[in-house]
Amino acid sequence: MTKVLEQLAEEYDNKTPQEIIEYAFKNYKNIAISFSGAEDVVLIDMAKRIRKSFAVFILDTGRLHSETYQFVDRVREFYGIDVNVYSPDTGELEKFVREKGFFSFYKDGHTGCCNVRKVEPLRRALAGLDAWITGQRRDQSPNTRAFVPVVQIDPTFGNGKLIKFNPLSKWTSAQVWQYIRVNNVPYNRLHERGFVSIGCEPCTRAVLPGQHEREGRWWWEDAMKKECGLHAGNVKG
Amino acid sequence: MTKVLEQLAEEYDNKTPQEIIEYAFKNYKNIAISFSGAEDVVLIDMAKRIRKSFAVFILDTGRLHSETYQFVDRVREFYGIDVNVYSPDTGELEKFVREKGFFSFYKDGHTGCCNVRKVEPLRRALAGLDAWITGQRRDQSPNTRAFVPVVQIDPTFGNGKLIKFNPLSKWTSAQVWQYIRVNNVPYNRLHERGFVSIGCEPCTRAVLPGQHEREGRWWWEDAMKKECGLHAGNVKG
Amino acid sequence: MTKVLEQLAEEYDNKTPQEIIEYAFKNYKNIAISFSGAEDVVLIDMAKRIRKSFAVFILDTGRLHSETYQFVDRVREFYGIDVNVYSPDTGELEKFVREKGFFSFYKDGHTGCCNVRKVEPLRRALAGLDAWITGQRRDQSPNTRAFVPVVQIDPTFGNGKLIKFNPLSKWTSAQVWQYIRVNNVPYNRLHERGFVSIGCEPCTRAVLPGQHEREGRWWWEDAMKKECGLHAGNVKG
Amino acid sequence: MTKVLEQLAEEYDNKTPQEIIEYAFKNYKNIAISFSGAEDVVLIDMAKRIRKSFAVFILDTGRLHSETYQFVDRVREFYGIDVNVYSPDTGELEKFVREKGFFSFYKDGHTGCCNVRKVEPLRRALAGLDAWITGQRRDQSPNTRAFVPVVQIDPTFGNGKLIKFNPLSKWTSAQVWQYIRVNNVPYNRLHERGFVSIGCEPCTRAVLPGQHEREGRWWWEDAMKKECGLHAGNVKG
Repeated sequence: MTKVLEQLAEEYDNKTPQEIIEYAFKNYKNIAISFSGAEDVVLIDMAKRIRKSFAVFILDTGRLHSETYQFVDRVREFYGIDVNVYSPDTGELEKFVREKGFFSFYKDGHTGCCNVRKVEPLRRALAGLDAWITGQRRDQSPNTRAFVPVVQIDPTFGNGKLIKFNPLSKWTSAQVWQYIRVNNVPYNRLHERGFVSIGCEPCTRAVLPGQHEREGRWWWEDAMKKECGLHAGNVKG
Repeated sequence: MTKVLEQLAEEYDNKTPQEIIEYAFKNYKNIAISFSGAEDVVLIDMAKRIRKSFAVFILDTGRLHSETYQFVDRVREFYGIDVNVYSPDTGELEKFVREKGFFSFYKDGHTGCCNVRKVEPLRRALAGLDAWITGQRRDQSPNTRAFVPVVQIDPTFGNGKLIKFNPLSKWTSAQVWQYIRVNNVPYNRLHERGFVSIGCEPCTRAVLPGQHEREGRWWWEDAMKKECGLHAGNVKG
Repeated sequence: MTKVLEQLAEEYDNKTPQEIIEYAFKNYKNIAISFSGAEDVVLIDMAKRIRKSFAVFILDTGRLHSETYQFVDRVREFYGIDVNVYSPDTGELEKFVREKGFFSFYKDGHTGCCNVRKVEPLRRALAGLDAWITGQRRDQSPNTRAFVPVVQIDPTFGNGKLIKFNPLSKWTSAQVWQYIRVNNVPYNRLHERGFVSIGCEPCTRAVLPGQHEREGRWWWEDAMKKECGLHAGNVKG
Repeated sequence: MTKVLEQLAEEYDNKTPQEIIEYAFKNYKNIAISFSGAEDVVLIDMAKRIRKSFAVFILDTGRLHSETYQFVDRVREFYGIDVNVYSPDTGELEKFVREKGFFSFYKDGHTGCCNVRKVEPLRRALAGLDAWITGQRRDQSPNTRAFVPVVQIDPTFGNGKLIKFNPLSKWTSAQVWQYIRVNNVPYNRLHERGFVSIGCEPCTRAVLPGQHEREGRWWWEDAMKKECGLHAGNVKG
C-alpha cells in the first residue's frame, strides 16, 4: 500500500487543500477531521463547503485554555456540526497526577503527560477509522514537520492500515490566516493575544514578533523534539 | 448513631477548628480532608500542626483555573503531603460533552455538569472512608449553609455511615483570612484578583466590594440553590 | 468661622449624605464635587437627584488606569454632566520625571510624585471655590481618616476660607456599595477585579478577601501615612 | 541643502544602521534619538556601542501603557542614560479633555488628540536640535512609510533646517527582532502579548498572526492615513 500512497502524495502534492479534502471524503468512509481548537479550523470551513456532514473529533486534555473550550463550542454552533470529544482515561490520569502532580512536564519533559492526556485518547479516537485529516503544516517546525506529505500511511498509529491526510501541509501560516480573514472564519481569541500555535494551557505561550510559532510550545525543552506523540512518526531517525 | 452525633455536635459547637480536627483524627482512621483549592487550605495547615501525615483529596473537574492547579501543587510541596486527585469518569464525561458541549450549564443549570465532574468522582473519593473533613462555613450561604453543624452524619453520601466534620462551620470569612495572614498560609492567586469563593473556571467569578462571596458562583442561577451536589444535604426541604 | 463650622458639623453629624449635599449646594455657590473615578461616584448620583447641574472636577495624574478613564467618560455621559479635568503642570512634571523617572515613589515614597501630579493641580481646581465636596469616609483609614467630620474648614487648602464637605464620612464601604447596587449606579470596572480603593495605576492594587482597602494603596509604605496630600490635614500630629 | 541631503541619502542607502548613526553623531552636535518605548530601543543599543553618552527623548502622552512606563525606566537603568520626557501643555490638554473627554478619537479621529499629546510636545523636543534620529521603517506602512529615506530634511518640523535620520528605514521587522534577540536587548513586555507596534494605550492593540503591525494602530480609521502627525511629511500628496 505504501507505494500507492507515495504515488498519490506525489500526484496531490500541488493540489489545493480543498481538492485533497474532497479526495479524502470521496475515497474513505470512516474518516474524521482532527481539530485542535486552533487555526486548523480552516479544515472544518473547507469541509463544510464540500459536505454537509462529516466527523470531527477533539482531544480534551483537561488542561485546555478556557478560550479554547469557548472556541470549540462556537465552532460547533457556527458550522452546525457535532464534535466528538475524547478525554483521558480516568484511572491512568488519576494515577499520573497523584504521582507527578499537575506540572511535572516542566521537570520531566512533556512526553509522560502527553501520553496520558493526548496519545491514549487519540488511540481511541482513531480506532475504527480508515483515515484521518490533520492540520499539520511543513512550516510549523523546521525539524519535525519539514517533510510532512499531503497524504501518507500513518507512521505512528493504525498498524500501517490508517491513512493520514495533511491538506495544509504545504500552506504557510500566512496562507492559513489569509484564508481565515477572507472567509470570516471564526478563530480562537487567544490568537488576539500573541498566541500562534495553541495546545494545553501550561504548555503554550505567546510568541514575540517574528518569533517562530513553535517557540511558544514546550519552550523549556530542546527545540528539536517538539512533538506531542500524535505526530511522532514525523521525526526522522 | 444520629443521636450520638447530635450530642457530639453540641459538645463541639464551641470548640476551635483545631480541636475538632484533632478529635476527628483521633477517632477515625479512614478519614480524609477534602480540599477545593481555595481558602479551605487552612484545614491542611491546621492538620499539619496536629499530624505529620494525613489523607487529602481534591476533585479535578478538568475545568479548574490554571491558578488553582498551580496552587494545589504548591500546597503539596509546601506541606510535603500527597494529594489524591479524582477525575471524572472518561465514558460519562465524553458522553456528556458530546451531547451538551462545554458550556451547557449556562442554559440547563449546573447540576448535570456537576454530577459528572464533581459528584461521581466524590463518590469514589468517599468510598472506603469512615469520615471526611470539609471547609464548609455557615457564612458562605444564607440559604444552603446556614445550619451546617461542626459534625454530622453525611446527609448525602455514605448511607448514614459516613461522618462529616465541618471544623470551620462557625468561622467567618474574616476569621479564615486572618488565620491565613497571621500564619503565612499559601493561598490561591485568584484571591488577589477579586475571587473569594473558587470553583470551576466558567462557574466562578470575582465579586464586587461588599458583595456576598456566593454571588461569584453560578451567578446566572437562583441564589437559593447554589450547591454543587457535594453538600446538597444542607438544603432543607 | 471655625466655631460655626463645628456647630454645623455636630448638627449635621446624623444627617444623610443627601441632606448634607443639599445643604452644601444651598449655601455655597462656588462649590464643586471632587471625583476620584472610584466609588465616590455616589456623590454625583446623589447630587443629580438634587440639582440638574453642578460642578465636578477630577485630577488626571497622567497615570490613571485605562478603566478609570473609561469610567469618567461613562459617568459624563450617563449623568449628562461636564467634568473639569486638571492635569499636572507641564514644566514641573517634565522636570520631575527627567530626574526621577516614572517609578521613583517605590524608593522615595509617594509624596514627591503626588505633589506634582495631584496636589498642584488640586490647588488650581480649588482656587476660586468657596467649598468642595469629597467622598472621604472614616472607615477608609483607621489612622488618617478616623476623625473626618461631615463638614469642616479645609485644614490644608484655602487659608481657612475654604469649606470642605464629606457627606459620606460616616458611611461604611458596605453602605456605599449597597447604594450603588440598589440605585444601579455605574461603577469602575476595576471593582470587578478585586480593587476597592482606586488611585493611580502603579500605586493601587487589588486586596485579598477581608483585607482593608487602604492596604491596596502605597502598600510598600508605612500604613500610618497613607494620604496623598489632598487630605493631609486629616493626619493629627 | 536639499540636494546635499539627497546625495547623502543615496550614498548611505546601503549602509548599516550603525554606520548611519555614527555619521549622524559625528556631524551633528545638537542631535537626539526619539524613543517611542517600542522596538526602536535598538537605536539606543546601537548608539551606546558608538558613544557613552547621547541625548534621548520620549513623548509621554499621559496615556501610555503601564508596561511602556516600566520599559522606559528599565531602558534608562540598563543603558545608564538620561531620557528627556516631554509632556503635553497643561492648558491645551485640560481644554481638550474638558471639551472632548478621554476617548474622542474613536469618533473624531486621532488627529486632534495626537496634536495635543504628541505634536506640540515634539515641537518643543525638537526646538534647538539640528538633527534627530527616529526608528521609522519602510515596512511599517505600505502607504505612509514606503519612501522613508535613511536621511532627509525633516518634511514637517524645523522649517527646512532640521535633519532627520531614519537608520532602520530599510530594515524589516524581522531584522529588528533578530537584532533584539541576538543582542539580548530589553524589550517592552507588551510584545509578549501580541503587540507589535506600540503607541498610546487606547489607540494600540495586539494583532493576529500574520496581520500587518499597522492594523494594531487606530484600527477604526482608514488604513491609508495612519500617521500621528510626527511623521506626517511622509504622506505623499
